[in-house]
Amino acid sequence: MSLCRVQHFSVSLDGFATGEGLSREEPFGHAGERLHEWMLATRWWRQSTGEPGGSGGIDDAFLRLFEPGIGAEIMGAGKFGPPGWQEDPDWKGWWGPNPPFHTPVFVLTHRPRAPVEMEGRTTFHFLDVPPAEALAAARAAASGQDVRVGGGATIIRDFLAAGLVDHMHVAVVPILLGRGVRLWDGLEGIEKEYAVESVSSPSGVTHMTFTRKDP
Amino acid sequence: MSLCRVQHFSVSLDGFATGEGLSREEPFGHAGERLHEWMLATRWWRQSTGEPGGSGGIDDAFLRLFEPGIGAEIMGAGKFGPPGWQEDPDWKGWWGPNPPFHTPVFVLTHRPRAPVEMEGRTTFHFLDVPPAEALAAARAAASGQDVRVGGGATIIRDFLAAGLVDHMHVAVVPILLGRGVRLWDGLEGIEKEYAVESVSSPSGVTHMTFTRKDP
Repeated sequence: MSLCRVQHFSVSLDGFATGEGLSREEPFGHAGERLHEWMLATRWWRQSTGEPGGSGGIDDAFLRLFEPGIGAEIMGAGKFGPPGWQEDPDWKGWWGPNPPFHTPVFVLTHRPRAPVEMEGRTTFHFLDVPPAEALAAARAAASGQDVRVGGGATIIRDFLAAGLVDHMHVAVVPILLGRGVRLWDGLEGIEKEYAVESVSSPSGVTHMTFTRKDP
Repeated sequence: MSLCRVQHFSVSLDGFATGEGLSREEPFGHAGERLHEWMLATRWWRQSTGEPGGSGGIDDAFLRLFEPGIGAEIMGAGKFGPPGWQEDPDWKGWWGPNPPFHTPVFVLTHRPRAPVEMEGRTTFHFLDVPPAEALAAARAAASGQDVRVGGGATIIRDFLAAGLVDHMHVAVVPILLGRGVRLWDGLEGIEKEYAVESVSSPSGVTHMTFTRKDP
């Protein structure tokens, strides 16, 4: 069965998944890399950038689940590029010629364009449809594997509110960003649909998993 | 040295310390007791109500720090009573004739009244002063011991923003309340002043401690 999953999505203690003032130079605005430092310190991340060392514990374990079993990704326009990328016909995402997805990626935008094929099996498709329809399209492209909802916060919130998420891993980072885009708004009571586990890591991050209860 | 401390203050995953619709019948509004269930399940709580059993782990350990070393409490008007308690000259708090504080308690309200002496060494004093002045008054009454800032969220936020809190223990409860009074608003970057530790409990709660760094 193909699940809809959110993976290692980082939020601050006050619930922000990105800061204010997003731009091409500052993809996360005033948050900088502070929400993702725990990732950069892992073996998994360092291997991907050719560096030795890194932590091999719980942070690393969760990150290694990034690729296995995922057949497609859905992301919001805000993840694909900085504000205004729709004006730039040459914009092909932040990730260079060989993006880390290696699957079809469905970008939700009110201004769709033609698909963009990248190296390494990543193809960006652009859709202007509601969450359930996007999920159906991604599932059809996922060869029976799971679909990742990759963010940002607005898209994950929409998918949670629509009851579409089967499994979610959120990493709560012990910083207070104060402003930006919140993940948790308008989701009162969704924990009732899930078995929730929390475990804190020596890095200071608390990993929370939300596993949908059997119907 | 007398510290200013916040103890086992519970907030939801989305940062609310109390719900909406507070009343005499529903002190925490639509949140009910959901933020405090982890407390009710401990040996410490059960002993206080004459019941056997209860958990004896990390939740219990933190709760047992409630009384030792505390010489006075400061609380907000919203903790002392339901909306409108100032209209009731006989209102003496939620806690019956022998409140659990057993120290002087300073209630911050814009409508102060004469002190109220209760059983068991609790006396309620009513002050209309800024946080630093309230802390000075509480310290003077604390016989060299620490001062607890007992809540609600608004008061704790004010004391944090004023840089007055030396140690804080917050329990993050994995529920989404969606509405109510937020603890974390307007506190961008305060984690830089503190060494922060997070540890999750088998109850599902994550205990976070904020220990002020040496100057």
